[in-house]
Parts: sequence; C-alpha cells; structure tokens
Amino acid sequence: MIPRYSRPEMVAIWDPATKYKIWYEIEAHACDAMADLGVIPRENAEAVWKAKDVTFDVARIDEIEAVTKHDVIAFLTHLSEHIGADEARFVHQGMTSSDVLDTTFNVQLVRAADILLADMDRVLAALKKRAYEHKDTVRIGRSHGIHAEPTTMGLTFARFYAEMDRGRARLVNARAEIATGAISGAVGTFANIDPAVEEHVCKQLGLTPEPISTQVIPRDRHAMFFATLGVIASSMENIATEVRHMQRTEVLEAEEFFSPGQKGSSAMPHKRNPVLTENLTGLARLVRMSVTPALENVTLWHERDISHSSVERTIGPDTTVTLDFALNRLAGLIEKLVIYPETMLANMNKFRGLVMSQRVLLALTQAGVSREDSYKLVQRNAMKVWEKGADFKTELLADAEVTAALSPAQIEEKFDIGYHTKHVDTIFARVFGKD
Amino acid sequence: MIPRYSRPEMVAIWDPATKYKIWYEIEAHACDAMADLGVIPRENAEAVWKAKDVTFDVARIDEIEAVTKHDVIAFLTHLSEHIGADEARFVHQGMTSSDVLDTTFNVQLVRAADILLADMDRVLAALKKRAYEHKDTVRIGRSHGIHAEPTTMGLTFARFYAEMDRGRARLVNARAEIATGAISGAVGTFANIDPAVEEHVCKQLGLTPEPISTQVIPRDRHAMFFATLGVIASSMENIATEVRHMQRTEVLEAEEFFSPGQKGSSAMPHKRNPVLTENLTGLARLVRMSVTPALENVTLWHERDISHSSVERTIGPDTTVTLDFALNRLAGLIEKLVIYPETMLANMNKFRGLVMSQRVLLALTQAGVSREDSYKLVQRNAMKVWEKGADFKTELLADAEVTAALSPAQIEEKFDIGYHTKHVDTIFARVFGKD
Amino acid sequence: MIPRYSRPEMVAIWDPATKYKIWYEIEAHACDAMADLGVIPRENAEAVWKAKDVTFDVARIDEIEAVTKHDVIAFLTHLSEHIGADEARFVHQGMTSSDVLDTTFNVQLVRAADILLADMDRVLAALKKRAYEHKDTVRIGRSHGIHAEPTTMGLTFARFYAEMDRGRARLVNARAEIATGAISGAVGTFANIDPAVEEHVCKQLGLTPEPISTQVIPRDRHAMFFATLGVIASSMENIATEVRHMQRTEVLEAEEFFSPGQKGSSAMPHKRNPVLTENLTGLARLVRMSVTPALENVTLWHERDISHSSVERTIGPDTTVTLDFALNRLAGLIEKLVIYPETMLANMNKFRGLVMSQRVLLALTQAGVSREDSYKLVQRNAMKVWEKGADFKTELLADAEVTAALSPAQIEEKFDIGYHTKHVDTIFARVFGKD
Amino acid sequence: MIPRYSRPEMVAIWDPATKYKIWYEIEAHACDAMADLGVIPRENAEAVWKAKDVTFDVARIDEIEAVTKHDVIAFLTHLSEHIGADEARFVHQGMTSSDVLDTTFNVQLVRAADILLADMDRVLAALKKRAYEHKDTVRIGRSHGIHAEPTTMGLTFARFYAEMDRGRARLVNARAEIATGAISGAVGTFANIDPAVEEHVCKQLGLTPEPISTQVIPRDRHAMFFATLGVIASSMENIATEVRHMQRTEVLEAEEFFSPGQKGSSAMPHKRNPVLTENLTGLARLVRMSVTPALENVTLWHERDISHSSVERTIGPDTTVTLDFALNRLAGLIEKLVIYPETMLANMNKFRGLVMSQRVLLALTQAGVSREDSYKLVQRNAMKVWEKGADFKTELLADAEVTAALSPAQIEEKFDIGYHTKHVDTIFARVFGKD
Repeated sequence: MIPRYSRPEMVAIWDPATKYKIWYEIEAHACDAMADLGVIPRENAEAVWKAKDVTFDVARIDEIEAVTKHDVIAFLTHLSEHIGADEARFVHQGMTSSDVLDTTFNVQLVRAADILLADMDRVLAALKKRAYEHKDTVRIGRSHGIHAEPTTMGLTFARFYAEMDRGRARLVNARAEIATGAISGAVGTFANIDPAVEEHVCKQLGLTPEPISTQVIPRDRHAMFFATLGVIASSMENIATEVRHMQRTEVLEAEEFFSPGQKGSSAMPHKRNPVLTENLTGLARLVRMSVTPALENVTLWHERDISHSSVERTIGPDTTVTLDFALNRLAGLIEKLVIYPETMLANMNKFRGLVMSQRVLLALTQAGVSREDSYKLVQRNAMKVWEKGADFKTELLADAEVTAALSPAQIEEKFDIGYHTKHVDTIFARVFGKD
Repeated sequence: MIPRYSRPEMVAIWDPATKYKIWYEIEAHACDAMADLGVIPRENAEAVWKAKDVTFDVARIDEIEAVTKHDVIAFLTHLSEHIGADEARFVHQGMTSSDVLDTTFNVQLVRAADILLADMDRVLAALKKRAYEHKDTVRIGRSHGIHAEPTTMGLTFARFYAEMDRGRARLVNARAEIATGAISGAVGTFANIDPAVEEHVCKQLGLTPEPISTQVIPRDRHAMFFATLGVIASSMENIATEVRHMQRTEVLEAEEFFSPGQKGSSAMPHKRNPVLTENLTGLARLVRMSVTPALENVTLWHERDISHSSVERTIGPDTTVTLDFALNRLAGLIEKLVIYPETMLANMNKFRGLVMSQRVLLALTQAGVSREDSYKLVQRNAMKVWEKGADFKTELLADAEVTAALSPAQIEEKFDIGYHTKHVDTIFARVFGKD
Repeated sequence: MIPRYSRPEMVAIWDPATKYKIWYEIEAHACDAMADLGVIPRENAEAVWKAKDVTFDVARIDEIEAVTKHDVIAFLTHLSEHIGADEARFVHQGMTSSDVLDTTFNVQLVRAADILLADMDRVLAALKKRAYEHKDTVRIGRSHGIHAEPTTMGLTFARFYAEMDRGRARLVNARAEIATGAISGAVGTFANIDPAVEEHVCKQLGLTPEPISTQVIPRDRHAMFFATLGVIASSMENIATEVRHMQRTEVLEAEEFFSPGQKGSSAMPHKRNPVLTENLTGLARLVRMSVTPALENVTLWHERDISHSSVERTIGPDTTVTLDFALNRLAGLIEKLVIYPETMLANMNKFRGLVMSQRVLLALTQAGVSREDSYKLVQRNAMKVWEKGADFKTELLADAEVTAALSPAQIEEKFDIGYHTKHVDTIFARVFGKD
Repeated sequence: MIPRYSRPEMVAIWDPATKYKIWYEIEAHACDAMADLGVIPRENAEAVWKAKDVTFDVARIDEIEAVTKHDVIAFLTHLSEHIGADEARFVHQGMTSSDVLDTTFNVQLVRAADILLADMDRVLAALKKRAYEHKDTVRIGRSHGIHAEPTTMGLTFARFYAEMDRGRARLVNARAEIATGAISGAVGTFANIDPAVEEHVCKQLGLTPEPISTQVIPRDRHAMFFATLGVIASSMENIATEVRHMQRTEVLEAEEFFSPGQKGSSAMPHKRNPVLTENLTGLARLVRMSVTPALENVTLWHERDISHSSVERTIGPDTTVTLDFALNRLAGLIEKLVIYPETMLANMNKFRGLVMSQRVLLALTQAGVSREDSYKLVQRNAMKVWEKGADFKTELLADAEVTAALSPAQIEEKFDIGYHTKHVDTIFARVFGKD
C-alpha cells in the first residue's frame, strides 16, 4: 500500500485506531453477553461502555506493548485506564487474543468488501452506460490481433460488464466467506466461555458464528477471499489491456481522457500515453500477488500457529487498498474514455473487404461448392487483397468460378455490415436484461 | 499428470477420443438445430448421426492434422470419411473452431468437477465417520506447536469436515462458473449462426449459453475454477500436515495405515513414515501451481488470442487428475488412519497439569484477584513445572497466595477434563446438523 | 509435458529407462569405490559391471515395486536378477535410497541444462544473424504503444540477444547449482559409507560432492534452478510479445513464417495469425508456474521429508521439456521471421514528422528558449499534426516564434533519420563485441 | 512494508528524499559529462553543484507534480528554484525521464543489496559460531519426522550455514544483475545524448552502463534479482521451520530466547511460543510473493510501457525492507537460540536403540546373511521395540539367528555413538574450510 495508489476510505479501515475500536466493541459486546449469562456482574459490563466514544490512544498502546510485548494485553491495560482497573477486571474473561484479533480482521475484510462492491457498482454503471452509448458503433473484431469480423464497441463494453458482473457475484460470495466471527477460546472448545457470547458478539457485528474454530478462524476462508480478488484484478487487467491496444498509435480507436494541462512526457509533448491502463496492468499484478501467500496460509500447525499473521497484516490492507484504488481508476477511465468511431471504420476497411471472407466462404458452401473448393476460391482472392492491395469484392466479382456459384447481388449482399450487428440487441438483452 | 498420481476415470475425460466424441456431439446437435431453423437440410443433419457409435480414429486425425495444421479441420475431414463428404458438407457451418473447442473444454471441466465432487463426498464421509468415532477421544490442543488446552480428536476431524464441506460448496460454484457453452462465431456476434443453435447445443450438453462471448468463452470463469481447486488443495495440505505432525516420533498420536508387507525404508526397517501425507503436501503444491497461469490467462487481446491454449491443455488435465488422485488418497488415508488414544493422553500429561493454567488464571480472577496478580501467581507455579518437572496442581495447593483465593476443592475442580469437552456436542451439531 | 510441446531428446532424459541406467551407474561406481577402500570384495564390484550393457526392464521393476512398495529396492532386486543374488549382495551397502535418487535427479537436470544451453545458443545465433541483417532497417521506437523516436530493427534483435545472453549466463550458474551429488547415508553423516565413495561417484558422473547433505541434497539449489528457468521463460515471452505486436493487422511490420499449405483458420482464410508467439506466451506461463512450488520445496522437515518428491517428478520433466520445446520454436521463429521494412517506414511516417518533436524541443532549448517555452512551442505545433493531420515540419517552418529561434535549415536538419542511427554501431559493439 | 517489520537503514533507501538526491546526482554528473563533451557550457554544469548539500523539499515537489502530473519535470522545476532557472536550463538535456528513474531504481537496489549482504554476513557468523559450539552435541536425525540415525546439532547449523552461504553468493550475482545504469534517451539510441554521458554517470555511481537499453533498463535483470531474494527467503523459512519443530512441546530440543519480562500469551502464562520463527515463515511468504509479478514485469510493449512501475514502487521497498528485517531477526534468533542437549539425548533414546537398526542390518549383510534375511531379522526385533517397548540391543542379543551371525561384542559395537560422528570434522572442513 503506497499513498499514490490509495483512497482514504479504505485506508481508514486499516488504521490502528479503527482496529482498536473494533477490539473494544468485541470486548464490550462480550461483556454484555456474559452479564446476560450471569457470568460477570452487569455493572462491570455496563462500565465498559463508558469508553464508547473514546478514540483510543495508539501511541499509548504502543508504549505499553513495548513493555508487555503483547498487543491485546497492551490494549486491555489501556482500556482499564479509561474505565478503571476494577471495573475492567472481567473484560476479555475466558477469551483468547485470537478471539479478538480474528474477529476483528474479518470485520475489516467485510467492510473492505463492501467498499469494493460499491467500487464495482461504479465500474458496472460506467460500462453499461458506455455500452448503450456505443451499442451500434461498428469496429472490427480481432482474433490473434488480426482482423476477423465486424463487431461493435457496445459489445466490447457489454462483455466487460458481464465479466465484472460475474466478478461482483464472486465478491459477494467471498464477502460471505469471511463474514464470520469466533469467540471460542484457546483451542476452540468454549471451555472458558459460553457459545452464547460468540453468538451475541457476531450478531452485533453483522457476522455469522464460525461453526468450528480452533484458536483461530480457519484460513481457507481468507484464501478464497484473496483468490477472488485476484480473479477480479485479472478481469480488470483484461479491460485495461483492451484500452492499451486501442490507444496504440497505429490503432487509435480510443484514448484515455487527456486533461488540457497534462504533460505526457518531458521529451515528447505530442504523446498521449495510456498510462492509466498500463498502471492498472501493474496494479492487477500487485493484487494477484497476494493469492499464493493466502493459499500458503491455509496450513497451520495443529490448533494454530502465527505464520499467517505477518502475511495478513500486509496483504489485508495492501490488497484491498490497491484494488479499491484500481477499481476507481478503472471506473473513471471508462466514464471518460474518448472513443473514435471514425478511426474504427477506417481500421475496419484497411484490407478492403477481406474481413467478409468468412461470409463468402459460407455462401459458396451453401451454394453447393464443396468446403475444400470454397476455401480455395476464397483464399486465392484474399491473397490478392493481402499482397497487392486489391479490393476483395471487386476480385470476387471478377472470378468466374466464384460468379458461377454466386450472383453479383449475392456477392454484394455479403458485404452488408448489418449482417454482423443483427443480434446485438439479443446479446444486450442477455447481458443487461430486458429493460 | 503422471501415471503414478492418476486415476483412470479422470484420465479418460482428457483422452483425445473423449474430446473428439464431444466435438462430434456438438457438431451433430448444431446440425439438428440448424435443420430445425431450416438453414440446412434435415437429411444432412440426420446423416451426421450415422457416426453416433463411431470411436474416432485418433491416429488418422493426427495424420490429417499433420497436413492441414488445423485440428478442427482435420477432425471434420475425418468425420466426412465416416458419413460421406456430401452429407457432411453442412457440418460446422457458420461456426468457428473455438465454438467447438471452448464448449468441449467446458464439458470436460464439468465432468472433472463432478468426479471431484464425488471425491470430496468420500473425503467428507470418512471425516464424519472418524469424527463421531473419536468425538470424545481427548487430546491436547496445541497453538504454536505448544500444548494449550485439551480438545478431542473428534473436533479435529470435525473441523476438517467443515473445511472440506466449504470446499465442496466452492466447487459447486466453480462448476457452475465453467458450465457454459458458446456457439457464437468468429467474434461472438452470431453473424453466421443463429443463437438458437447455441441454445440447443448447450441444452443437450447440460450447459448454459454464455451470455456474451467473443471468439471464446471469457477466461475469468476458468481462472475462478482453478483458483477454487487451489483453495481446496490447500485445505487438503492442512489436513495432511496435521497427520504428519501426529505421526512424528515424539508425538505418535496417529499413523498412516501400514500394511504388513510394506517396507518403510531400505535401510531402517522400523520406520513407518507418513509418506502419503507428505505426498499430499507436494500434490497440493502441484494443484496450486495452476492458479497463477490461470489468472494470467484472463487477459486476451481483443476478441481472443491463443496464449491461454497451451496453458489449458496442460493444467486442464494435470490439475484435475492430480486433485482427483490426491482427494482419493486423502479419503483412504482418513478412513484407515490409526489413532492412538493412549499416546494422546500421555502427551497431554507431559507437563503435569500445566495445560490447565488458563483455567486457574480465570478462577483466580473470578475469585477477585486482579488480572495482573492472577497472571503472576499462575506464572510462578507454572515455571516450577516447566523447569523442575513439578506437578502443577500440587504446587498450586502448596502456594499460600493461591489457596487464599481458591479452596483445594476449587483447585481440584480446575483439573477436570469434562470442563473442556462440555461443548463438543454443541459444536458437532453446528458442523453436522442435529441428526 | 504433452507430446505436442515436446522434443524427443529432452523427453528421453526423463524416461524411466534413463533413470534406471543412472541408478545403475551410481551403484556400480559406488561398488568400485568401496572395493578400492577394501570395504567390499573386488570381485563383487566387478560383477556389477556385468550389467553394463543391460537395458533395464521397466515393466519388471514396476512389477517388483508393486510388491515391495519401494522403488530402489525393486530396482536392486531386478539388478540382482541380472548379476546374481550373491554377487549383488554388497550393492547399495551403507547407502540410502536418496543417495541414488537425488544424485540421479541432479544428473538429469544437468543433462537437461546442457540441452537448454544448446537451445539458447541456437536462439542467440538466430538473433545475432537477424540483428546484423536489419542493423539499419529503420522503424519507429514506441513507448506505451505510442510512437516515440526512430530506432532500427537490428537494435530490437540486438537487445533480445543481450537479454537471452544474460539468460544463458544465468543458466550456466543454475547448472552449476544442481551439478552436485551426495552419497552420505540416512542423515548425511557418512556413518555407514566413506566420503571417498561420494567423491568417486561424483567424479565419474561429472558432479561435485555436496559439501553437506542430510538425507537429501538441499533444495535451495533446485529452487534457484527453476527460478532461473522462469526468468528465461519470461525473456522468451518478452520477444514473443514484440512479434505479436508487430504482426497485428494495423502494424504489420513482421509476420511469422507462413508455409504455403498452412491454413490459418477454418473460417477466415486470409488470416495469418501469430500463433507461434501466442503459444510461446502460454508456454512461458507453464515454465514459470514451477517457480513457486520449487520455492515451497526448499523447506523440509529436519533431515528430509518427501513432500518435494511429487513436485519434482512433475516439474523436473515438464518444465525442462516445455522450455526446450519453446526455445526451439523461438529459434525457428526468429530464423524465419518475415520482416517488412516498407511497412516500418510507412508506420513511422504516420504522424508526419511528429516523432521528431523531441529533437525540435532540444534545439529550441539549445537556441536559448526556456524549457517551458520550448515545450509550449513544440506542443502547439504537434497538436495541429495530431488533430488535423498537418505536417509537423511545415507547421514549424510557419511558426514565427519557432523560426525566430531556429533557421529553416536547422529545422530541416532535425528531420534527418541519420541523427537517430548514428550510435547503432557503438551499441552493436557493446552487445556483440568488436568483431 | 509495515513499521513492525522494518529497519530504518533500509527504509531510508526508499525515502523520497533519498530518491531525489540520487536524481540530482545523476543530473549533475550528466551535466559534467556534457560539459566535458562541449555540449553545454561548463558554468552551467558547475552551477548544478550549487545544490550539492540541499535536502530537497519533498512536499514542494509533490505540490508541483500535482500541477504538472509528471514527477521528473516537477523535480527539475524545483531544482531550478535552487540553482536558478537560467543556470538550470541545460539540466536533463537530451535525457528522458526513465534515464533518471531507472538508473535511480538500480542505485537503490544496489544499496539494498549491500545491506542484505551485510545481514547475511551476520546470519552466517551466527550460524558458524553455533555450529562450532554444538559440533559434538548429539541429536537424532529425522527423516519424515521419524527418528533415523544420530547426527549433531553442529551439523544442523553447518548445513544452514552452507545454504545461506550459497544464498549470499547468489545475492552477489543478483546485485551485479541490477548494478547497471542507462542514459540513452527516449528509445535507447543515444540520439540526443552521447554514450559518454552514460559512461561518466555510471562510473560516478558505481554502476556499469547497460549495453543496450530501450527507454528502460531491461526487466529480466530485476526479475532475476527478486527471484534470488525469493530463494533466500525460502532458505530462511527452512531454518525457521527447523526451530519451530525443535521447540514443539514434545520435542523441546531448543527454544527461542525468552526474556524474563515477556508474556507468551494472555491466557496461558507457561507457554513459550516460537513466535519469531513462525513470523519468519510468514515473512518468507511476503518476500516470495514478489517473484511472480517481477517475472510478469519482464514483458514490456516495444521500447517500454509503464506496467512494471507500480509493481516496482511496491516490491522494491517492501521486499528489501521485509527481507532485511527478517534476516536480522533470524540472526538474533540464532545467536540467542537456547539449545537443550539433554533433551536431545533423551529424545534419541526414546526407542531404545532402534535408531541403530541400519547399522545392524549392514553388519548382518557383511557377516554373510543375505540382504532379504538380514532385513527380516532386523525387522522382527525392531517390531518388539516398537510395539512392546523392548530394548533393541537386548532383543538382538537374545535372537539366536542374529547371534549366529554376530558376536555379542560385535552387536555391542553397533550401538557406539562415535560411529555416527566420526566424519563431522570432515564435513566441517568442507563447509567452513580448514582453519
């Protein structure tokens, strides 16, 4: 996580102050539940809420931790400074540090997921808007970087929409994966604390009780969460790469929005570089790089070891902050992407009709020519276009073997663009629903 | 994929003959749909089914491909050898190779997922059986590899069950991700083929039509699929690691089943090595290694490039075959795992009562001793056990400051094992339901 | 490893028959050394060489292993079938299976590295040849996919040469990393076998004795080996990506060689797709995917566990076979790559002189105009080219503020291509030496 | 990079102020070289050095960048505020931003490598010291977590020394990989700047001129650098895992140093958890996670794109800071690791002599018993130890078939520990040299 690629709302989730606030809430709710059970005096539970509006002093807690070398004890010591040592003596009773730490981490991930879902909504809204705007903007479809058949820019946006929408559904699943809490004690047996405490705390925090925990919440949940972010990041890279290709000098079918005052390069003022999408390509790698350590974190020794902790301290904030920043950059990029329909047409016509060869091939077959012969007829005329810059339709009309099978009108019809766009509405209905 | 780590049923899915059979079915169903639409003659569609029971000649297709350098054309050529060149001339009409290849790949992945789901069911059944069998088998819970508090072997099996059950649910999702087909033409516009063909073919094959494809089915789906397998493999490693720890000489709480005739080592005949679980640890790495390339595969240039293909030709078979083998090995391992309850008890008592220190700490706090003082009281008696091999309960009973707060009976009660197992049934009900 | 992406010479290294031959050689040399030490009778050592020309029966060994469940014992049993049970009784004495297995694996990796080095030499030779051939073939250099300043195709080849040459040097290092052997017994103490045996066997096999082994050769060596292959594969992808860009329809500065009979697509006969380089992009991912498991393999429990084994059985063959195939494909691709110098010129001139803007900027600065003002002058004329298709030089000559600083002749001179190529020879001398 | 896992010296390398200082030095040295060439006036070059002792104002540069949206221009503008706009007008002449950025990044990586080399020296010194200290401290060697044969703790330290020493040699290579600089202009042709400038700047900064650059220094160098750090981190994890195993309750052959005031757990005061080595295990994952994005960074479009930049802004600091912290933690850990030789002996004797079975097997073979029969004799006695807790030597002495082959004295001799340690000095000499 570096400031350049961060947004404050997501950064705030990972602030130590936020963390302590959640710790506090867990402890306070747990005291309530223990008072309900009659395990601790009601007044002690109530006393904890005296600190309800306290902003905990991170520096002071650090100071205590430097002595105790234990973060939760340091926090509890500090908490007792606020509510009184005597009043605080039942706080954390029967709990283990991980009850607090793990539940807190999941609260943070859930909040992060909620921001990311909102980010994706912004991306989706932008993609949908641009899809409808360019539903009929014809451009050449390309396979292997080579012209294939016509498509529309709207379809391009629509498929990115569909992909991001799948990503959003995956993120909803991933959010559910980590929306659990555990207050189950040192090895998860509830020996020292009643399961009712866990239930109460989880309910208050919007979590589900982890059905079976050890000292920790099982890390397959987190692995799935980060793996899902990795897939979303890859979809983001997919979109970014399309834009990068569209903006390259020879293609120039789109450009990232270029504010008048912006300098593209210290040396080449005419250049408008797709730096945002190149940046998104790199950010995708950063998000993805958390997947492997998250997978390695799943294996813990017996009821827990702490090898996962340093990894999570890093990838928890870094990955969510980076993806949040990137999705917002992506949304802005799509919203303002400058599209050049004229260049799209010009590019499509670069090889004078050659992109229609598939249609001609099909027509020949349907007219009774064998597949092999049809292929040869199309190929020999195509090669003239390719090698000598001829016009494909003209060549076909002049090829006696072709005209023996197809009439001039039939040939002419094969070059109608409407042929290619006739199902765009069908596809849009599939993607966006019938609205 | 290597024979040593393969099972025939999964291998068969990836056999060239299976692939050609699926290609054939796609082409035949597509012809039916085209005949329904009146696009091709009914008799040509029917003629294709003449090859219904043909086992395609892989060597012959390879031979043709050596000339055409194109696998689908080679297959179509061979198909026409079976049903007649004239009858076959409408086969594949309006379709592009990827319509066949991508839909086939997904059919294979769906079948692989079905086997993997059955594998997981076997693992789950084994875990559940062993969980109930050892529901009350007490063992020490460990954090950081260090004794913590008592738990039961049943809880260990139960948490692995819960983890694998989550894995199964993820796999169901992952299966849905890749259960789509596409017959949409060269750039996905259905220019040359009606969407009704796609719908018919998908329905026949148990797939959902891909809402919007390009030349290919979008690869975020496959990325999610392989990422999910990576998470499941990591859970498998988690279980394997527990067994490896249990079998180490100093712990010896369990052993992999050791058949009488088996030789553990050429040099050390007494050794019974946990080679199956060590092997599963490695196999987990092999499954996981497909995640990153699958994520890298998501980004394709424009309407497709073929960079993903070689990756999928490899990780498609290798990852599913390896995971299938591994899950079955895991299931067998759990089914036959030899558990040593006596050693579990002996291990738990290694540090004479020290594992009960948490309870004593809590009791002191509840008896009105401050947290800090309780901690010190427990710590000083614990250190005698640790350093001099004393008995913890005896020391506590002899510590005047302790007995000032707790009566001998109260101290005695803290060492009751039932205290730790009282919620096992609650947890089992959470994990397995109330049956 | 799949046949489609395999070459026989590399595949043969990983054949079981090859493996058993190396096992045999290790055992036979070890017997010699033990006879030299007087530990075993000379005649028994000599008897082992009776099997010198035997091709071991893989099926028979598998059969025995099915009973013994131990591969080395199975082999030794089979060996005794060849040389006599009595004569064979000192074979493997004092050794542990890993002495044979690990040393063999390294022999195989060394042989694989030697093939890969030869592959890289072929790639290097091709790059050098094409670099000199196109030393002066001018093309536009691009940053961010956007035209920057002129360069030459020769420089492109030369930088790939330099990169691959670094890769070769890394591979030489990586080969040295795994060119060690160990015959040190069950935990590496030489308790049952004299270090002189290890020295003799290693010398005979062209290896260095591992200074300190446990039961196994330390796996950091193998991690470094596979990491190095991953870097080389990435360099290969770098070259492949350049070609893919060059071949895209709008750029078309190069094409993969297209044999006359080859069909590019079943549907679009005019298409010449860069399928080899797209394939190399995917193969690079396959090679790279071995890096993470190889890194995870470094950590073994105590003196060894066998978690690394299944990983190595897979990535050993798969990674070397894939990279061998890919490097040869790359070499052939470069050797036959079709270059279009005319298109390169046409592309460079797409934005009429705009690529010279950097020179003009510099000239203005040198003529005393401030950096900021120079930038503005260049920018305003550049925008006319960009937006209206004007000619940059013409605009500059018509801009009074520009001509106030630079004479027409000076402006003219800024558009001389020789300015950009004047250091090509210097760079070639740096890369290829002064020959 | 998070403060908890950071050391100030390494953090300082990545401080913006350090970066600007290096930028400045590059620009100033470049001006000197241009003055030497007569390209710019000597007085302008000298004027640049007026800022020699300036600490650049990061906030001010950020402020300018907010307007220009270009970091190098922002810096140059700020620089001119220090040395005068007129004096500064030749600064950066003929250079491109990457000339500065890339060369600076490599200077930072070189400095980071130097710190890491010093870190490794500290680790090596600690390992060597502890190796000699425990050269003869006997412990059981374990394969598969199962007792094998005796070894010594000194050998354990010695093999970690050898592994880290290989890591150090790799880091020296990796440092050389990235110790290059480039001042070659927008596409690397030196069109606007003489190669002599690059040579001068590199020499002043302790770098080698990059033989052929584009706009950037090729990224295979950086990939190799980060891959190497990944291997070193894996070796670190290997050591950490050994300690974690040694400290587990049932083994307890070593403990991380535990300062008297330290609290191991809020709930279980007796626990001394191997938290440092568990932490190192996690940190190793964090270092390793940079390898894949570094490999993905190698492929750039044409003469450069900026996708690598965000990755490097993150992994450059994070990976070096994390590894620096981790290596120091590792060194401290080894220096102070508490070793328990008595427990080592007790553990070794857990299965009364069984670890000597290999020797007995060998002795029987040498006494003329067939391998198969020897194996069975050893196995049947070993099983009595395993299953009934018998003493191995006693059982052997009571087995008539054994004593028929070996005299009691011969059997007795097989249990001599000196047999296993006789080559320790030889191995030490191999690892540490003969000093």
